[in-house]
Amino acid sequence: MKKHNFYAGPSILPEFTKGKTAEAVTNFAGTGLSVMEVSHRSKEFVAVMSEAQALIKELLQVPDGYSVLFLQGGASTQFLMVPYNLMGKKSAYLNTGSWASKAIKEAKLFGDVVEVASSKDANFNYIPKDYVVPADADYFHITSNNTIYGTELLSDPDVGIPLVADMSSDILSRPIDVAKYNLIYAGAQKNLGPSGATVVIVKDEALGKVDRPIPTMLNYKTHIDKESMFNTPATLPIFACLQTLRWLKENGGVEAMEKTNIEKAALLYNELDRNKLFVPTVTDPNDRSRMNVTFVMAPEYTELEKDFLDFATAKGMVGIKGHRSVGGFRASIYNAMPAESVKALVEAMQDFEKNK
Amino acid sequence: MKKHNFYAGPSILPEFTKGKTAEAVTNFAGTGLSVMEVSHRSKEFVAVMSEAQALIKELLQVPDGYSVLFLQGGASTQFLMVPYNLMGKKSAYLNTGSWASKAIKEAKLFGDVVEVASSKDANFNYIPKDYVVPADADYFHITSNNTIYGTELLSDPDVGIPLVADMSSDILSRPIDVAKYNLIYAGAQKNLGPSGATVVIVKDEALGKVDRPIPTMLNYKTHIDKESMFNTPATLPIFACLQTLRWLKENGGVEAMEKTNIEKAALLYNELDRNKLFVPTVTDPNDRSRMNVTFVMAPEYTELEKDFLDFATAKGMVGIKGHRSVGGFRASIYNAMPAESVKALVEAMQDFEKNK
Repeated sequence: MKKHNFYAGPSILPEFTKGKTAEAVTNFAGTGLSVMEVSHRSKEFVAVMSEAQALIKELLQVPDGYSVLFLQGGASTQFLMVPYNLMGKKSAYLNTGSWASKAIKEAKLFGDVVEVASSKDANFNYIPKDYVVPADADYFHITSNNTIYGTELLSDPDVGIPLVADMSSDILSRPIDVAKYNLIYAGAQKNLGPSGATVVIVKDEALGKVDRPIPTMLNYKTHIDKESMFNTPATLPIFACLQTLRWLKENGGVEAMEKTNIEKAALLYNELDRNKLFVPTVTDPNDRSRMNVTFVMAPEYTELEKDFLDFATAKGMVGIKGHRSVGGFRASIYNAMPAESVKALVEAMQDFEKNK
Repeated sequence: MKKHNFYAGPSILPEFTKGKTAEAVTNFAGTGLSVMEVSHRSKEFVAVMSEAQALIKELLQVPDGYSVLFLQGGASTQFLMVPYNLMGKKSAYLNTGSWASKAIKEAKLFGDVVEVASSKDANFNYIPKDYVVPADADYFHITSNNTIYGTELLSDPDVGIPLVADMSSDILSRPIDVAKYNLIYAGAQKNLGPSGATVVIVKDEALGKVDRPIPTMLNYKTHIDKESMFNTPATLPIFACLQTLRWLKENGGVEAMEKTNIEKAALLYNELDRNKLFVPTVTDPNDRSRMNVTFVMAPEYTELEKDFLDFATAKGMVGIKGHRSVGGFRASIYNAMPAESVKALVEAMQDFEKNK
């Protein structure tokens, strides 16, 4: 039976990425060796790294003066690297969920953190709108997509100071204005590749302005100077990211992705707004994530939750159980998710409703 | 033509590891999904993580009271995490090469670092023997194998205080007495798997003794408490490590590896001691690495260096060019390296000698 992979991350990847990676695990770039056992300094792998960095610059139209890095440690490590490198005395954060809260916690080790607004009062089911960002903060940190709560900031805010964003779960899903950002980071395991690689896009001139000593591996300058090869990078995950980047370019880039992502999300949200059994957890359409669609059973049908999970599982849906902080269901529909799988889920919801 | 993979890292992996990984990139544990696109919290991946941790404990006979972690960031990140977590006011380091020097540099950010001895005077071509380790240091840090310079500490030193070791390039190549160590760390990309995973073996009671605040991701306790799942681990690299661990167990464990590694190294060093064209860079047989055999042309034959590189390359040898700090050649002959490939290199050296 065909599986429909709705995992929140690690998550669905293009067939192209999987096929090319399986090939390279056996024979990489005609070397006769596995991509897992070739030096990161071989000309074959250096070409992978360069092309991956160049494609990110091209696809996101990264302006001059920015560096693209492939690091390790996930977004969680960026939570501390960002203030270590960019925060003098003060920074500002928007609290839109668990990951934003974790980023705030780390920043507090380094100075004065202003939480300009929070949607914690409503279990993070909306994006705060009315807030004031202090003009003397070094940056304003946002979590553009909130994987757990299903909300998304669908445009780059204008706040008068440089932005820093955790884009782990929506990077490359739509065009962004990189010039507004001092730094963007993303764990690869949603829209890019397998876990183990972390993309950082950083404005070079934003660095070198803090006084604290920075351990070598936590210093972005280390990795910029050595083109992400100061130490051994995660070669296989980066190889897989490159395949996804090639697939993205071949399929129209982030503009085409955005169009498809809007259509896929509409399919699901329209059904959620129509189907009497289900309720989306995010009510304001402007805040609804195109990547992670979260929903619960309507109050009068809560006892059917387990039934629907079993029903959908029997139809090949994988990974739709909601995060424990929200409950219910979560359908993660990243770039690589085909519309057919979204339609299959919608049909399952309709069939389930008919049978009740 | 058969390739003989002598890369220093990422480096040769068992055919078993490559075969199982290629399979899992297509269909992981019967899920019909790739190991790259399955949640780290799926029961299938949780089983991978648990078995990998258990096998390391079993193969290295790790005593009770130690935790095994799979982190990211490589040994270079451990250079700073070790002092962040374990160093109160003072630590002691043995300087046996570039990596040891880098570890010392990071430790100095955190307190008083005593470099008890260094072999820098002779381009690190030996392991210092006569040194005194201060009894009031929190730990004594060694780099058990020096990938660049071809030296190795073949037994666990007795110094009266707990050891900390970077075993990136010789972990699981021989039995060790883990009880002597507060912490052992190793990037996976030599004897374990692809780059992107870092193994840490840490004595639980060595932690929690320093006063400084530790960022969450840099705190070993974070990862112990969440069994290496505080954030998304590098799932595919860890899956590949597990395959190597299974292969190791199936092939007699670290005792059998040590026996074979001694034999393989002897083949090469015997030839280097005999062949008039080549000279091993490490003269004391007790200090010679079983993992990385470094050699140069004899002084009267230096002009033949490029010729031999071409000659060996034509016979399928890959990755034997020496590190720029030493020059000449380096044959990395990790656990997964078959004796046949070592013999092929020895034959190439003999053939080359005959033709001159």
